[in-house]
Amino acid sequence: MSVVADQDLKEYKVIGTRPIRHDGVDKVTGRALYGADIHLPGLLYGKVLRSPHAHARIRRIDVSKALALAGVKAVATGADLPSLSDTVKALGEGSVNLKYQSTGLLADDKVLFHGHPVAAVAATSVHIAEEALALIEVDYEVLAPVLDLRAAMKEGAPILLDDLRTRELGDQMGTQQTNVAEHIRHQRGDLARGFAEADVIVEREFTTSTVHQGYIEPQNATALWNGDGLITVWTSTQGAHSVRGQLAELLLLPETRIKVIPMEIGGGFGGKINVYLEPLAAILSLKAGHRPVKLVMNRAEVLMATGPTSGSVIRVKMGVTRDGRITAAEVWMAYEAGAYPGSPVGSGMNVILSPYRIENLQIDGYDVVVNKPRSAAYRAPGGTNAAYAAEAAIDELAEKVGMDPVAFRLLNGAKEGDRRGDGPAFRRIGYLETVRAIQESDHYRTPLKGPNRGRGVASGYWGNWGGKSSVSASVNADGQVNLVEGSTDIGGSRTSIAMQLAETLGISEQDVKPYVVDTDSVAYNDVTGGSRTTFGTGWAVYELGLKLKEEMLQRVAELWEVEPEQVTYADGVFASDGHRFTFKEAAVKLNDDRPIMASATTHAQEYGPGFATHVVDVEVDPETGKVTILRYTAAQDVGKAVHPSYVEGQIQGGVAQGIGWALNEEYVYDSQGHLLNTNLLDYRMPVAPDLPMIDTILIEVANPGHPYGVRGVGEVPIVPPAGALANAIYHAVGVRPAHLPMSPAQILEALWAKET
Amino acid sequence: MSVVADQDLKEYKVIGTRPIRHDGVDKVTGRALYGADIHLPGLLYGKVLRSPHAHARIRRIDVSKALALAGVKAVATGADLPSLSDTVKALGEGSVNLKYQSTGLLADDKVLFHGHPVAAVAATSVHIAEEALALIEVDYEVLAPVLDLRAAMKEGAPILLDDLRTRELGDQMGTQQTNVAEHIRHQRGDLARGFAEADVIVEREFTTSTVHQGYIEPQNATALWNGDGLITVWTSTQGAHSVRGQLAELLLLPETRIKVIPMEIGGGFGGKINVYLEPLAAILSLKAGHRPVKLVMNRAEVLMATGPTSGSVIRVKMGVTRDGRITAAEVWMAYEAGAYPGSPVGSGMNVILSPYRIENLQIDGYDVVVNKPRSAAYRAPGGTNAAYAAEAAIDELAEKVGMDPVAFRLLNGAKEGDRRGDGPAFRRIGYLETVRAIQESDHYRTPLKGPNRGRGVASGYWGNWGGKSSVSASVNADGQVNLVEGSTDIGGSRTSIAMQLAETLGISEQDVKPYVVDTDSVAYNDVTGGSRTTFGTGWAVYELGLKLKEEMLQRVAELWEVEPEQVTYADGVFASDGHRFTFKEAAVKLNDDRPIMASATTHAQEYGPGFATHVVDVEVDPETGKVTILRYTAAQDVGKAVHPSYVEGQIQGGVAQGIGWALNEEYVYDSQGHLLNTNLLDYRMPVAPDLPMIDTILIEVANPGHPYGVRGVGEVPIVPPAGALANAIYHAVGVRPAHLPMSPAQILEALWAKET
Repeated sequence: MSVVADQDLKEYKVIGTRPIRHDGVDKVTGRALYGADIHLPGLLYGKVLRSPHAHARIRRIDVSKALALAGVKAVATGADLPSLSDTVKALGEGSVNLKYQSTGLLADDKVLFHGHPVAAVAATSVHIAEEALALIEVDYEVLAPVLDLRAAMKEGAPILLDDLRTRELGDQMGTQQTNVAEHIRHQRGDLARGFAEADVIVEREFTTSTVHQGYIEPQNATALWNGDGLITVWTSTQGAHSVRGQLAELLLLPETRIKVIPMEIGGGFGGKINVYLEPLAAILSLKAGHRPVKLVMNRAEVLMATGPTSGSVIRVKMGVTRDGRITAAEVWMAYEAGAYPGSPVGSGMNVILSPYRIENLQIDGYDVVVNKPRSAAYRAPGGTNAAYAAEAAIDELAEKVGMDPVAFRLLNGAKEGDRRGDGPAFRRIGYLETVRAIQESDHYRTPLKGPNRGRGVASGYWGNWGGKSSVSASVNADGQVNLVEGSTDIGGSRTSIAMQLAETLGISEQDVKPYVVDTDSVAYNDVTGGSRTTFGTGWAVYELGLKLKEEMLQRVAELWEVEPEQVTYADGVFASDGHRFTFKEAAVKLNDDRPIMASATTHAQEYGPGFATHVVDVEVDPETGKVTILRYTAAQDVGKAVHPSYVEGQIQGGVAQGIGWALNEEYVYDSQGHLLNTNLLDYRMPVAPDLPMIDTILIEVANPGHPYGVRGVGEVPIVPPAGALANAIYHAVGVRPAHLPMSPAQILEALWAKET
Repeated sequence: MSVVADQDLKEYKVIGTRPIRHDGVDKVTGRALYGADIHLPGLLYGKVLRSPHAHARIRRIDVSKALALAGVKAVATGADLPSLSDTVKALGEGSVNLKYQSTGLLADDKVLFHGHPVAAVAATSVHIAEEALALIEVDYEVLAPVLDLRAAMKEGAPILLDDLRTRELGDQMGTQQTNVAEHIRHQRGDLARGFAEADVIVEREFTTSTVHQGYIEPQNATALWNGDGLITVWTSTQGAHSVRGQLAELLLLPETRIKVIPMEIGGGFGGKINVYLEPLAAILSLKAGHRPVKLVMNRAEVLMATGPTSGSVIRVKMGVTRDGRITAAEVWMAYEAGAYPGSPVGSGMNVILSPYRIENLQIDGYDVVVNKPRSAAYRAPGGTNAAYAAEAAIDELAEKVGMDPVAFRLLNGAKEGDRRGDGPAFRRIGYLETVRAIQESDHYRTPLKGPNRGRGVASGYWGNWGGKSSVSASVNADGQVNLVEGSTDIGGSRTSIAMQLAETLGISEQDVKPYVVDTDSVAYNDVTGGSRTTFGTGWAVYELGLKLKEEMLQRVAELWEVEPEQVTYADGVFASDGHRFTFKEAAVKLNDDRPIMASATTHAQEYGPGFATHVVDVEVDPETGKVTILRYTAAQDVGKAVHPSYVEGQIQGGVAQGIGWALNEEYVYDSQGHLLNTNLLDYRMPVAPDLPMIDTILIEVANPGHPYGVRGVGEVPIVPPAGALANAIYHAVGVRPAHLPMSPAQILEALWAKET
């Protein structure tokens, strides 16, 4: 790792150091408690009956034989979901999303994907629950599935959702039945004039497959619907308050009746935001007479029925002048939503071409339902497909005007004051710094030699997010601080947030003990996602630290009988004329009088976008089409790196996932929509021997919208890899793969096509 | 129950109502989780080896055979306690208390009571652990035990603690080895002149036996000393922060390294403040390689080795004028501390005679070690024995000057401006109101007829306590409030505190959801004890409610674009010219912008003393000496009764315990100091058929030192019963029992003595 700090970056004492993470020992010793570790007196075990069909109407469900099985304590179907009650159904349009959300969890009258939950059982053992599933009789009327995105958009395609109409360019609603849920447009400048100014125009179409987040820990949930009407849920989630909110909506309860206890999480990457099992566990608990019910998915269930990210079709048309200036870009992009609306096409539209200054631009996006599991967020949702298409087109443009791809990006790259798409102007950003860092890197300056070898460059962007955070802290009499936060820790944020509180308080990071609590113990926190946590919850602990310091200073002044203005606090020492307390001494004295506690809530609105430029060297085996990665370097503007090792880890993790998506990962369906690769042998994610060391260059351009200059870092690194690899493969073997994954089969076919 | 409100008592909306307690459903459905319900992966089970001798020197402990037993993972002895390390031992005087505390938990070189812990074992099952205990070889040199308080005080008595010296009247230290740990004196006026003014003088000596709190749930503790050095403890306690503090001291760790999770508690009454098993569980966990270890006592262990309250000897000498005015009182009281110093003699001195205005007064108190378990707090610690002696003497004085005992108390009773002992003057108190309430009660006005029947009256006092409390709360978007508190709930305080927050916020009690959290999630809270919780933590939520209201009002004003001064909040509605938000509407709007959370810490210093007067009718069976309680009425100044039903429950519970202490409960030792009655058949506590309905009269005299006029209520009611019963027995059969318990055997002996 190398770190390049912006000139005007501030120096800190704690921020920028690399303490051991608070959850480290628990995790390496196996002590950390995950959802599957939950054990409660009287616990029941749940299993879910799933549709064997990708598209079918349910004529009848008979659960009587299952209920009669000894040991079965409850069976639930869609009819048991309060949100599918007749009252709610009668509410009409306003509750369409709730209806989709609900029927996705437990089918109502239709199943829309292979693996769609149809019923759930709670029994005294998991074996009895499984046996009971086999006793549930479902009478299906099998319908033709729609698996192909373009086919789904055609008139006359089988319709998944009877009441779906296209939301067109904002709020205009279509009148026809359709599978297109939404059409969005970003527009700027004059497209025709832009293309007229161009000397070279490239127009290409790219497609990408459905891929999964691939977290190791399967979804799980345990719920106790207590006799007093209060519900407690233990689950693996990126956001306990979000689970609470979703449950409140689905169960038609005030959210304060629900307590969500977030367990440790074995990976999420966006896929642990939506609820899948939590509502079923709650309903089964209620039906089983207030006994706790635990559900844990197996791998097949995870792959079949939890949030993959969208397959997509993206067409990019771009024009450049002879000297390499981009004059216009027109993009058409359609994303698979899966069974219900809600693909990340909108965020893909935000990502595509955002590293570039383009005056004339139009991006059209389409959200399309198909008979696959409902898509969920996946690290920079929709960004990897989008950037893949754009960066491949840009590589081709650069080649056509005879420019080095890095020079091309330096010429067209966005900087402070430029606008993204049709959005507002950027404040201080570090995109060009990432391009220059690659240009000046040992990697880029070392020529790549040998047959079938090529080097690819690509850039990427993620807007990041701020959101709402709430924290509290107590300063104990030993001078150490307990920090209470609601942001679930999916990648070291306990530490990165504790460090910011320590920095603000002027104490050691070891003296802050962070603790992620349940939804009853802290006010609302948005999910850990959108790369918001170190940034947004960092804001919150900054405010909290200021409050605590202020309170302590006031009380120290009282103790010394001086005016607060006469007391200073610097380098961990309160001082006034003739008086001196270290932070710890003050903590002892003040606690003697009265405990010290404060809370803070924030809603961070300025997000501090992140940019990256990656370079990769590959060698393509012309016999097998296999792509071997020889070297990989990722340069990213990370803002101030709170814990540089974790920032590097985020970048390396994002690149690894991007490589998997680019080269191997895909959902394989048969013609009837049955998912064929429901295990991690057949769904091929990269493993250690597949990857070289990922080198990182951390560019620290302080985010002006954060007290410590922090930007989100976790999502940007998954955006460029597919584009970089596509370009490297082209420079290695002269074919530009137009589909993800760029699997050996595709490369081989492209090579064969080129030869003939 | 009847309720008599003081004229100037305020009216409230929530305070004074009787909602269902928050933990009610959990407890009646068996769902509530107690310490014994804890299950953790890899859990080990601990057992404690206890001394078979009341007094012995330990020559040698050999644990090798126990350690060799398959399934045994760790054995700990006193040498494993960090606080007994050589370093600490070398510290000298300052750490004497710590040494006593430590050697009481795991013996060092001596055992001082039958049941004294000598070693602890952790094994894979409780049976293996028990088997291992039998394999530990301890070589004892048995010493003569000292069981009698007066004998212990005599020169030449066997010495328990080699380094013990008498702390005499403050800080003066004796030079001789002794069993008398402390001599305290309260003094006021001129005793000689006071007795000279008296027409009648009564001088009596009373003794009381050792008794136990008698909670149903035995002590338990589970600890995990984690690989990262952090310790988590699950336990049944009256104060999680107190457990944390005790552990930090014993383990020589900063308190922030320790997290204590308070489980539900099955009774404490003062006995669940000291740690017994927690340090053993922690040390065993460390020695067993960071595996969690659980220890649960059996009933015999509870009775043998956890905090009974002191047996005592009390001499009272009082003088009155012919017209009934008390002129002087001289008290000598010695309390058994058990094996180590720390009897509640000081608080007994505070209780004795405090309901009375006495100008000439001297009270001498002695804290004396004997070979019994170390005494612990028991509901109004030391108060019952003290009041028993005083109230019996007063009854005799009233009789001697021919006055009705109620009239005597009205004449001599303390009121606002009078001083307690040598303490400061009372603010507004309600003692005389309780006497008048008894005087005017149906019970007192109904003559008692029949042979061997008698009526007794007695009063009682408890100073109550304030202490430190910390709370936080979140206002959720559904308008409901999560309240985080650290005060463990031993008698409905979740509800009484939630009610005060609801009152302050102007919302319904059902919209506040209280939650008792661990020591990491809230700042310091003193123990639930001293009748402080509804009072002191009530203060804290009052401050918290004001903060939340203020914050919401400020933010509502911003939303409406008016000055905060233009916004009012009353009856749950924010209003300004043309604007109106209910609390819930404001919660929705404000949360949309930013979560709402606040915290507050308080150190309540004005405690609001509580007084009670009880009347009881008994019938004594002259054949057996058995006392049957015919009718019982307790009048108490409870301040404002937050939840009158729970206040009544506290009074009834206190009276029931006081009756048990008065009539039956006692530790029975053989001459060698072996406790003979180590089960609840032989240690005779009252059961339902032993008691009539306890009638209550709640006198609501607002405490001027609390925003809602709250006083502590839980301890006062255990103070008068023994005195009232002694007086009733006298009026029934003409003997004044001079010893507690006034068991059938004692009564019968007194009757026989009277006849001869």
